[in-house]
Amino acid sequence: MVVTKNLYLKTQGQCDIVDITPRVAKEVSASGVKDGLVTVFVSGSTAGLTTIEYESGLIADFKSLWQRIAPAGLPYEHDGRWGDGNGFSHVRASLLGASLVVPFAGGKLALGTWQQIVLVDFDNRPRSREVVLQIMGD
Amino acid sequence: MVVTKNLYLKTQGQCDIVDITPRVAKEVSASGVKDGLVTVFVSGSTAGLTTIEYESGLIADFKSLWQRIAPAGLPYEHDGRWGDGNGFSHVRASLLGASLVVPFAGGKLALGTWQQIVLVDFDNRPRSREVVLQIMGD
Amino acid sequence: MVVTKNLYLKTQGQCDIVDITPRVAKEVSASGVKDGLVTVFVSGSTAGLTTIEYESGLIADFKSLWQRIAPAGLPYEHDGRWGDGNGFSHVRASLLGASLVVPFAGGKLALGTWQQIVLVDFDNRPRSREVVLQIMGD
Repeated sequence: MVVTKNLYLKTQGQCDIVDITPRVAKEVSASGVKDGLVTVFVSGSTAGLTTIEYESGLIADFKSLWQRIAPAGLPYEHDGRWGDGNGFSHVRASLLGASLVVPFAGGKLALGTWQQIVLVDFDNRPRSREVVLQIMGD
Repeated sequence: MVVTKNLYLKTQGQCDIVDITPRVAKEVSASGVKDGLVTVFVSGSTAGLTTIEYESGLIADFKSLWQRIAPAGLPYEHDGRWGDGNGFSHVRASLLGASLVVPFAGGKLALGTWQQIVLVDFDNRPRSREVVLQIMGD
Repeated sequence: MVVTKNLYLKTQGQCDIVDITPRVAKEVSASGVKDGLVTVFVSGSTAGLTTIEYESGLIADFKSLWQRIAPAGLPYEHDGRWGDGNGFSHVRASLLGASLVVPFAGGKLALGTWQQIVLVDFDNRPRSREVVLQIMGD
């Protein structure tokens, strides 16, 4: 059985980190699939997906990591050509990755207690985002 | 067909890198599924999964990479609030990712000869870990 | 339904970034599966997979990111032991990851308009690569 759903959300950009766990859990539950996996995929090239313990200290720490390894202030060739000023957003998104796969059994996601599914929006402005959830299983 | 299995393992923490390939291969074989994929997922927010050529030089090199890009010695807001001292562990885990998907055909994982599936435990102390294997296919 | 296909491609190594989107889309279309997911997996431990807006500025920017966080010029223990000189290639590949999962519905991949699937070959020489595509769904 395959069920495909789109989530729509608004972000603030600038490394905004949005907890989408409740919405993913709700769609898994609504699908009627008991054992299987949910693939979470963000359409677009300036956002990514991962899991994190969603507390404000770590949210700040994760943003600092990105500023350290892919700083916003460097010269990017993308910016020279296109003038969007979001070259840093693109390379961060490509490093983090656009897909995440989470198994579930008995309708329950295999997440740890302190582990949430998040969208990270690296773009340099507020965005409307489309996240595809695909639920597959029995 | 969907088969879900849990692997339990003990790690030393501190970027301990554990080769779980034989256990994954064994569960795929035992499942009776011939063609499909195995989703490997670690429950918890201070460990991640990837593949690597499992030899001691690279194990050391990969640890050095993490110390370079997400050093243990920086101030982390997570540590200021919670006192666990493992802020660096969390941000590393979120960057590496909690899931890995490996296809197999004819019962054989699509890994290269020098490519092993590993759990990387970034926590700052020994841990007991639960890794979910979900096997799906025909 | 499960369909497994291998893509064969040649790269220049040295962070060569190859757009494989048309080949993935073609195999999804040829499979006859309408709704499902395609798992893209690279066999080998010196290459990875991700998505990126495939334009020459960003290609250069993404290469610069890798040289910043996992420089080719550092001493690597792998190189001391095996003499391949590609320790940097291995740690980059382990960080980026060997698998990518893309959902599709109605035969159309859930990619954004400016989002391509790419193989990144981190090795220090030209390589022949095998990428496994596994298509699963209805």
